[in-house]
Amino acid sequence: MKNRKIVLGIDIGGTKTKFGLTDSQGKIYNKNEISTGIFNNPEKLLHEIKEQIFVNTDKDTFEVAGVGIGAPNANYRSGKLEMPPNLPWKGIIEMQEPAQKIFNAPAKITNDANAAALGEMFFGGAKNMKNFVMLTLGTGFGSGIVVDGKICYGHDGMAGELGHTIVVPDGRHCTCGNFGCLETYVSASGMVRTALEYLNGNDNSGLLSKIDPKNLTSKDIFIAANNGDALALKIFDETAEMLGRKMAEIVAYTSPETIFFYGGLANAASLLIEPSKTYMEKFLFPVYKNKVNVCLSELFLSGADTAILGAASLIWLNTGS
Amino acid sequence: MKNRKIVLGIDIGGTKTKFGLTDSQGKIYNKNEISTGIFNNPEKLLHEIKEQIFVNTDKDTFEVAGVGIGAPNANYRSGKLEMPPNLPWKGIIEMQEPAQKIFNAPAKITNDANAAALGEMFFGGAKNMKNFVMLTLGTGFGSGIVVDGKICYGHDGMAGELGHTIVVPDGRHCTCGNFGCLETYVSASGMVRTALEYLNGNDNSGLLSKIDPKNLTSKDIFIAANNGDALALKIFDETAEMLGRKMAEIVAYTSPETIFFYGGLANAASLLIEPSKTYMEKFLFPVYKNKVNVCLSELFLSGADTAILGAASLIWLNTGS
Repeated sequence: MKNRKIVLGIDIGGTKTKFGLTDSQGKIYNKNEISTGIFNNPEKLLHEIKEQIFVNTDKDTFEVAGVGIGAPNANYRSGKLEMPPNLPWKGIIEMQEPAQKIFNAPAKITNDANAAALGEMFFGGAKNMKNFVMLTLGTGFGSGIVVDGKICYGHDGMAGELGHTIVVPDGRHCTCGNFGCLETYVSASGMVRTALEYLNGNDNSGLLSKIDPKNLTSKDIFIAANNGDALALKIFDETAEMLGRKMAEIVAYTSPETIFFYGGLANAASLLIEPSKTYMEKFLFPVYKNKVNVCLSELFLSGADTAILGAASLIWLNTGS
Repeated sequence: MKNRKIVLGIDIGGTKTKFGLTDSQGKIYNKNEISTGIFNNPEKLLHEIKEQIFVNTDKDTFEVAGVGIGAPNANYRSGKLEMPPNLPWKGIIEMQEPAQKIFNAPAKITNDANAAALGEMFFGGAKNMKNFVMLTLGTGFGSGIVVDGKICYGHDGMAGELGHTIVVPDGRHCTCGNFGCLETYVSASGMVRTALEYLNGNDNSGLLSKIDPKNLTSKDIFIAANNGDALALKIFDETAEMLGRKMAEIVAYTSPETIFFYGGLANAASLLIEPSKTYMEKFLFPVYKNKVNVCLSELFLSGADTAILGAASLIWLNTGS
């Protein structure tokens, strides 16, 4: 008797693709991962996942309610990946349609930051929230905006690219071609650029100057800051100020109840997230002051596999428009 | 027989309050206006409107489906005006509740830029659009963001204050207390500030230098630009660039189908709106390029009374959340 619904969650990354069967309580079964790069096209990847995912399961005991896929540059509306920068497949790539055929179930796709927002809404700290924002701080800067209980996809399905809004007019050159994008400052790679700018200048007295610039990482800056290094602390403070400015801007656009943080840099809560809230309050339009919560993602704090749960939430929430 | 529905639209401004009965086709009956400042409280204003609005109408022939009110700092969710800067009443002012009692009909409130967006959606050029933005360029800078067919009000009911997002970090001091707000540059008053900065500097050769700085208006800059004055043209170009930067940002947030313009400065279409689109395209994240329409509000072009029609659309559209 097929009395249990399960959802397949797939997270396609540049290096690895992770997947698992999820239940409505957030438990993940048959979790696994494979290298993305060895498949010539997404169909082959999806067929391989189908081979692996149902091993040792009794298919008669559950119903696959759908397949949720998180992937770079995924367009929720078109069902395609639009020129993803780090995948082995180039151009405009069909994803929703082959997934529906291969798994014979409804499939939906979105990008990883939106998936994190959806995961927080179905399984995490945003369960009863209608308006919130998820910011993912890793190598890059991702964002998922939830308006009135749904991801804001906009007209063309690709809204919410806050990492590519300007924080410093005519500032750093970004891979997208523009200058001064938020991602070039507030991200792991952006903080390394900030550090290298100081180190290439006159600031060569501290802990960071002892590291080969080619190998410098945001983790080095984090450790140096925790050891009281003045330059590292300055870098975190400047990064927090830029982030706080943008958070004030996000509030002026969409007035969220909470801004959640997720990703490697979110671990620097006392150095980055807490100061960014103080800066946000400073720059907020008065009507919004002291109204917005800022906190870490509950799924992130719990160590849950947000990539899989978030992708699966595309189906569990049955939302979006 | 009450077979016709009508909606009362009221636009409360700092100086005048305009009102009229609207039908679903956008026709306005018994349109009138009164001075806002002579009423000690909004109840007295609403009672006076009730006295005047039904004169020479046969109340038996129609049903008042509701009352829509546009007013500064109106909070759609709370039904109150939150510290409106230019009204005779101060602090937090009840508006929805007294309107419902006095007119014995459903009432809704919003700010004037959101009302303009709603008017465009029900009566104007956004009839079938689900995602668009209305920018109102007058003395200040207003904005209404429509996401998935509804105004984006956010958690606290006051989302969409783009005029108070930063365009020049640490730039001009704004009445809101912050520095570098968009409204201090891209607005009639902002353009006058730009002109005065140039005139107080070295730029005293052109047409604008012949006007008493105390009396300089954006209209003077418009006329001078149309007469080929180099400084006036430079001011329009710089204003268009700042606006274009922000339009690119708006797209990265909400991916609208169209950005509409409304208000006195929108008359400067060839000097401001068209160049701003060119700048927007320059600054857009590549995935959004050549996808967004930029045009003047259809209601604005038709000369319709958008303030009344927009307020009435709060009821006609029966939307918002």
